[in-house]
Amino acid sequence: MWGGRFAGGPAAVMRAINASIAVDKRLWREDIAASRAHAAMLGAQGILSGEDAAAIGRGLAKVADEIGAGKLVEDPALEDIHMHVEHRLTELIGPAAGRLHTARSRNDQVATDFKLWVRGAIDEALAGIDALEDVLLVRADEHADTVMPGFTHLQSGQPVTLGHHLLAYREMLVRDKSRFADARKRMNECPLGSAALAGTGFPVDRTATARALGFERPNANSIDAVSDRDFAIDYLHAAALTALHLSRLAEEIVLWASQPFGFVRLPDAWSTGSSIMPNKRNPDAAELVRGHSARIVGDLVALLILLKGLPLAYAKDLQDDKPPLFDAHDLLGLSLAAMAGMIADLDFVPERMRAAAAAGHATATDLADWLARVADVPFREAHNIAGRAVVAAEQAGKPLDGLSLAQLQAIDGRITKHALSCLSVEASVASRTSAGGTAPARVREAIAAARAARSDR
Amino acid sequence: MWGGRFAGGPAAVMRAINASIAVDKRLWREDIAASRAHAAMLGAQGILSGEDAAAIGRGLAKVADEIGAGKLVEDPALEDIHMHVEHRLTELIGPAAGRLHTARSRNDQVATDFKLWVRGAIDEALAGIDALEDVLLVRADEHADTVMPGFTHLQSGQPVTLGHHLLAYREMLVRDKSRFADARKRMNECPLGSAALAGTGFPVDRTATARALGFERPNANSIDAVSDRDFAIDYLHAAALTALHLSRLAEEIVLWASQPFGFVRLPDAWSTGSSIMPNKRNPDAAELVRGHSARIVGDLVALLILLKGLPLAYAKDLQDDKPPLFDAHDLLGLSLAAMAGMIADLDFVPERMRAAAAAGHATATDLADWLARVADVPFREAHNIAGRAVVAAEQAGKPLDGLSLAQLQAIDGRITKHALSCLSVEASVASRTSAGGTAPARVREAIAAARAARSDR
Amino acid sequence: MWGGRFAGGPAAVMRAINASIAVDKRLWREDIAASRAHAAMLGAQGILSGEDAAAIGRGLAKVADEIGAGKLVEDPALEDIHMHVEHRLTELIGPAAGRLHTARSRNDQVATDFKLWVRGAIDEALAGIDALEDVLLVRADEHADTVMPGFTHLQSGQPVTLGHHLLAYREMLVRDKSRFADARKRMNECPLGSAALAGTGFPVDRTATARALGFERPNANSIDAVSDRDFAIDYLHAAALTALHLSRLAEEIVLWASQPFGFVRLPDAWSTGSSIMPNKRNPDAAELVRGHSARIVGDLVALLILLKGLPLAYAKDLQDDKPPLFDAHDLLGLSLAAMAGMIADLDFVPERMRAAAAAGHATATDLADWLARVADVPFREAHNIAGRAVVAAEQAGKPLDGLSLAQLQAIDGRITKHALSCLSVEASVASRTSAGGTAPARVREAIAAARAARSDR
Amino acid sequence: MWGGRFAGGPAAVMRAINASIAVDKRLWREDIAASRAHAAMLGAQGILSGEDAAAIGRGLAKVADEIGAGKLVEDPALEDIHMHVEHRLTELIGPAAGRLHTARSRNDQVATDFKLWVRGAIDEALAGIDALEDVLLVRADEHADTVMPGFTHLQSGQPVTLGHHLLAYREMLVRDKSRFADARKRMNECPLGSAALAGTGFPVDRTATARALGFERPNANSIDAVSDRDFAIDYLHAAALTALHLSRLAEEIVLWASQPFGFVRLPDAWSTGSSIMPNKRNPDAAELVRGHSARIVGDLVALLILLKGLPLAYAKDLQDDKPPLFDAHDLLGLSLAAMAGMIADLDFVPERMRAAAAAGHATATDLADWLARVADVPFREAHNIAGRAVVAAEQAGKPLDGLSLAQLQAIDGRITKHALSCLSVEASVASRTSAGGTAPARVREAIAAARAARSDR
Repeated sequence: MWGGRFAGGPAAVMRAINASIAVDKRLWREDIAASRAHAAMLGAQGILSGEDAAAIGRGLAKVADEIGAGKLVEDPALEDIHMHVEHRLTELIGPAAGRLHTARSRNDQVATDFKLWVRGAIDEALAGIDALEDVLLVRADEHADTVMPGFTHLQSGQPVTLGHHLLAYREMLVRDKSRFADARKRMNECPLGSAALAGTGFPVDRTATARALGFERPNANSIDAVSDRDFAIDYLHAAALTALHLSRLAEEIVLWASQPFGFVRLPDAWSTGSSIMPNKRNPDAAELVRGHSARIVGDLVALLILLKGLPLAYAKDLQDDKPPLFDAHDLLGLSLAAMAGMIADLDFVPERMRAAAAAGHATATDLADWLARVADVPFREAHNIAGRAVVAAEQAGKPLDGLSLAQLQAIDGRITKHALSCLSVEASVASRTSAGGTAPARVREAIAAARAARSDR
Repeated sequence: MWGGRFAGGPAAVMRAINASIAVDKRLWREDIAASRAHAAMLGAQGILSGEDAAAIGRGLAKVADEIGAGKLVEDPALEDIHMHVEHRLTELIGPAAGRLHTARSRNDQVATDFKLWVRGAIDEALAGIDALEDVLLVRADEHADTVMPGFTHLQSGQPVTLGHHLLAYREMLVRDKSRFADARKRMNECPLGSAALAGTGFPVDRTATARALGFERPNANSIDAVSDRDFAIDYLHAAALTALHLSRLAEEIVLWASQPFGFVRLPDAWSTGSSIMPNKRNPDAAELVRGHSARIVGDLVALLILLKGLPLAYAKDLQDDKPPLFDAHDLLGLSLAAMAGMIADLDFVPERMRAAAAAGHATATDLADWLARVADVPFREAHNIAGRAVVAAEQAGKPLDGLSLAQLQAIDGRITKHALSCLSVEASVASRTSAGGTAPARVREAIAAARAARSDR
Repeated sequence: MWGGRFAGGPAAVMRAINASIAVDKRLWREDIAASRAHAAMLGAQGILSGEDAAAIGRGLAKVADEIGAGKLVEDPALEDIHMHVEHRLTELIGPAAGRLHTARSRNDQVATDFKLWVRGAIDEALAGIDALEDVLLVRADEHADTVMPGFTHLQSGQPVTLGHHLLAYREMLVRDKSRFADARKRMNECPLGSAALAGTGFPVDRTATARALGFERPNANSIDAVSDRDFAIDYLHAAALTALHLSRLAEEIVLWASQPFGFVRLPDAWSTGSSIMPNKRNPDAAELVRGHSARIVGDLVALLILLKGLPLAYAKDLQDDKPPLFDAHDLLGLSLAAMAGMIADLDFVPERMRAAAAAGHATATDLADWLARVADVPFREAHNIAGRAVVAAEQAGKPLDGLSLAQLQAIDGRITKHALSCLSVEASVASRTSAGGTAPARVREAIAAARAARSDR
Repeated sequence: MWGGRFAGGPAAVMRAINASIAVDKRLWREDIAASRAHAAMLGAQGILSGEDAAAIGRGLAKVADEIGAGKLVEDPALEDIHMHVEHRLTELIGPAAGRLHTARSRNDQVATDFKLWVRGAIDEALAGIDALEDVLLVRADEHADTVMPGFTHLQSGQPVTLGHHLLAYREMLVRDKSRFADARKRMNECPLGSAALAGTGFPVDRTATARALGFERPNANSIDAVSDRDFAIDYLHAAALTALHLSRLAEEIVLWASQPFGFVRLPDAWSTGSSIMPNKRNPDAAELVRGHSARIVGDLVALLILLKGLPLAYAKDLQDDKPPLFDAHDLLGLSLAAMAGMIADLDFVPERMRAAAAAGHATATDLADWLARVADVPFREAHNIAGRAVVAAEQAGKPLDGLSLAQLQAIDGRITKHALSCLSVEASVASRTSAGGTAPARVREAIAAARAARSDR
């Protein structure tokens, strides 16, 4: 391929470090699609004869059929997927195949192929997130009234509803989708026609190839087009944040499934046992989702480092862009599917959740709020009074709503019997009616709005 | 502040690890702005009396004046900027200050403050990028015709124009701005009113505070609102990619300023010398920009790790969100300003660039293209012929365009005298007229389009 | 300082990006110590006159006194701590100060200063780890018999003792110390005398300065000596692993302090409250330790990226080596101290631990082991039998040791009454007598061995 | 395998995320070795009968033969390599195979297998580094006298010899080896016998298995033994630093091979061409080595994140420890081999190097040193005088040693004709005779010392 200038062949180690076919064969569909668009444009512009363009088009279709049928024969001497495809095309249609590479270079070719692949990966990620979002909405709806402890610092803070808690993850996923969608829009410019780095003197129609491949427009600068890997990093950023959100949910599943919490029971389908301990029921899938987030962040970091200090234009370092991306995409897909499956199948235990919510004097804020709202006590003072009530309840070995009115009034005379009605966990969650609050009515509104937004897309 | 429940005070080490005032005092403007909006809303909703609301508003204005005048007295016992402000407010207006914290918590307060700060940081980053873009356009315009070697693999590949090369960075900056703008849009939801995590029972008007602070709407879920730090990570992602783009430009400045390249002379204002070597003229600013990119990526990584596996809702780990962000923002601002200054002041050396472009047989592609275009040789064969011409030129110790027609025809008889006219570097760049190509005419069009886009904003 | 070649001064932005005094002033002690060693050697070698060497030595001692007394006046025009010291020296002793920089450069000077600082930081880290190790040994000793659930996958697996659990962290700390000690040994070569990069023609005695500063020997290659920052990365690696170990312990404290676990009560000194929720008792210090681990890893990553692709020898990028290291060292010191304080003061709740250990059928392995050991059942089959016993206990709503012998024999006839004695949590932990096992006797041996190792150092 | 407690099987997605056989089959040798050592110990201790132990030993040998011959049949239902081996063993020897898992768990089993693998990987890395070191010594010896520019800030600073420059990398490699060796020593404790996490009640001999597998001793704490992955991170840290050192050398090869430098010619075996530009000769292998360093750092980061906040003991997240390590090891091995091959085959161009060294007034320091040494001018003043000489040379368009004595004396009268002899690049390098300096004599001493150290090992 490198032509007339090279006498000696590559060293064996050189061949091993240089060959990328084992990795980039995954781009075969995109490579053939881009070549077909390129050949059709060359024909339409009269750069190739109609016959040659047609022969190339038919030949590439046949190569696609063969690879689709599993007939790709990997040959490290052919380096990469681009050469494999062209080599097979040459076998099929003869020397006309040598005209396909007119007005292009592997630099713009690989940038185009990889962009097409990443764009497809974004669409797959969006579908995976949608599926998880749907599951969250179903479970949130079921549990719009289920009371659980709302934790901050993993300390029981205030009662919330499980539905509200699950919807918090829905908000993260909505941002994740927006991040992927932004990345998709930003990347959707076609490198083809940038050739090695300077553009080409052939009268190519870059808009035609861009449109044929679903891009919004050609890249505006040929040097940038072959040097840019922002799109891969934007993908990895969106993937990393999605994975981190899943890691938070996974952490909660692990916590909730532990014996001291007991908020969920893991169904058999999502549990594993131990080779030594017959009693175990392990949340392996949740742990693996958490672990995968670490690897996806590692993949992002790899690509960020790769770009550091690289002069323009294309450098071979950029060949290392694909393994981190393929790895992250596979891990993210598996994580989203596993999480959707787990959330759908989890067996929540509302009675354990409610009991935990009632422990820990979690309605102390409600007492303080009552004092501020009804008795016009400045909040800082009200907070202090409620704190003393907590101490009294602890010393009495009772929950806060187990204190008698007399006991409460001994702390502060402004407390009346009306205050007592605030101190149940149900009253507490029902009272949190501010926009975006945990009151069941608010949760149901949020679910309805989320479903409307889903069907609008 | 923690009220009636605590008997012992914090340990000294506890105080040292817990106090954040040395870092978060940087949020004072945002903290006061958010408190003023909150107090005004509490007044408008009748949750506070008009008098109290007004007193708080006036008091906060005075605190702002004092801090603006440098009169903040840091006290580690007051932990953070929120308590410093409230404490001073109490000194100024008395117990009514204790009503300000009605219907909010530090959890939604700090999320709001920090979001306001990050939003402002985005606006500063956008302005810094605009300034650098403007400088690039000026220098690209000056050098739309200046021929330099276009490198791939840092090997001379094809001649390009310096203007075209500089515009490649303009494309990166445009994507950087789009990334910051997307982040700004996605984050622009107000946490205020989410209280600790569950929302509040006070009849707050979250839309009012959101609007007063320039947010598009309140956050949709109170638990998410206090747990979310996506906005900080989105900022850092955009900053990291911008910094990496700058690191590539910095690398090129370092290369270009080296004696073997000699493509630029660094003006005194942007050079440093050596304490031992009197001959030195070092591109320190470019190196520091390159180095800063490493630290900014480190800041991004820190925040990604911070989120991993954190259960909902707020956890104190999140207090560590600010140092990486403040650090990255300062480094990015300095890097953008330094780069704009350097690019504006660089003394390009066109004669060195042209000489380098002419070396290395950089128009061999033009010969191959000519064979394919004019003599209808399949490109792969044409590439081979041109390769042999390069070998002949190397053996003759001449540049490619120094070979005689007879010498070229000895390689392939289809080469005619018309081919010779393609082999100068000027002819080469002029011929690359594809959209986004390096031909001077295309470069001037790109500059005009870029300027139109700038003035449209 | 850069001497006769520079006409214009630096731009304001250039000065801002270039000045490092705000950061590197922290090296003042090391800078003066290295200069004193250098001056003494120059005097001893006759490169400086005895008078000049003595004047410089006295002058530097005075500068040290002044800075120690807080009298350093920062001047950005003097760039860095080296120039500040030399400038003040010149004020104090006149032109002889200009002879101090003979046979050295800032390149070897800063490498030496920073190495001295990092070496000191290692010694501080080692002391901090020792202190935490001592606390762990005290608490492990108290709780050598305290039974708690041993978790895998955060599922109750087998009973262990709290003492044994705490000793697991002691093992991590021992590795951490070994990592710091290895780093200290590897770095302990002195750059001084490498000058800018090539060495010097002055008849310096590098071994003398190396010894005076506590190094084992001079660096073997002058180019490497000024380019190397491995020692900083080795420090950060050791710090990151230590911090990650602390993050695991911090995670456990957060879990144990949560209401569902209730394994520990946080004393007031290590708790914080909430500005809104009077009932809260938050493990902020543990969360901050966990958060700090993220930032320390970010610092490591920053320095790794910094080195990537830097050609030899010194490049200004290396000036960015200090902020990540200073940050990491401060965070690590605080984390170690906070963790030692917390562990010392934690109020363990053995009855909650024991109850949790007894739940979850955690002695099922003991039943399987008994079958394999006593009844000669192949372990895989024994594991299956014990698994069926767990199901029977679950269905009966009893703990495993609540099943009657008849119920167990209904599952497998080989189970005898002797098996029953294995099923209490106390019997279980007592039986794990393998080397390094959780049996109280083993735990006490391990503590004794650990104490012997501590006093050997 | 999980026995009697599980009714439903795993979901398909669960199986996909949980199965690790595709990755951990790479541990087959280590798994079988550890099982053989365990079985032999069980037999020696009388825990298994002699017959059973012997049957297991023979069976495992046969399984090893089969897998070595490529006959491993992967079955995702068997999850991991441990189950594959045991399953095949059961087919071969029947129910006695079920006794192999006595007194162990997959937790200690996988920790042992992976440690053995990492230990072997360290030995391979050490051998790869040795090979590169040997090549460096050969080339340094050839070029002990070859003068090249010594760069700081990529500006020509002082002349050095190529041999000295190459030896700088040798120093880095020596530290790399020390880092791997330290890691090997620290990790060399055997987890076997720790069982699930608590140790075992069977009378195992942990010292026997440890010795049989080449470990120094058993791990001291069973909980730590199954939770620890420090050894993998230590490996990755050593690999990352080695890779970063290679990235610096790779950067230099890319620079040196560029036309403006022209310090080396790449032989055909280590070059690639372009699919479009017939003139190209690309240093792809060097760029890939530089790129691989980014991925190896990414792998390190992944594992650091993985550990963050994991409670004890084993968690399934730890299963994600292997892909980053396998990836990094393969990339490092390839990088070391490619670098050794390239350095061995590089065609240095001493005349280009010398010419570059003579440009840039690189001996200005020598003039300043002469003034300080001979004319007793304080160095700061001498530096200033030499700076003015550089300006004079620049204005005269001459190299520094092209100025006449009269011209130099016009700058400072203390300059005599003896100073002129310092100003050639050969005189300059010859004068740098300080320990570790660039003088050819010093370089040859360093090579001899390095070779002695190599043969001592």
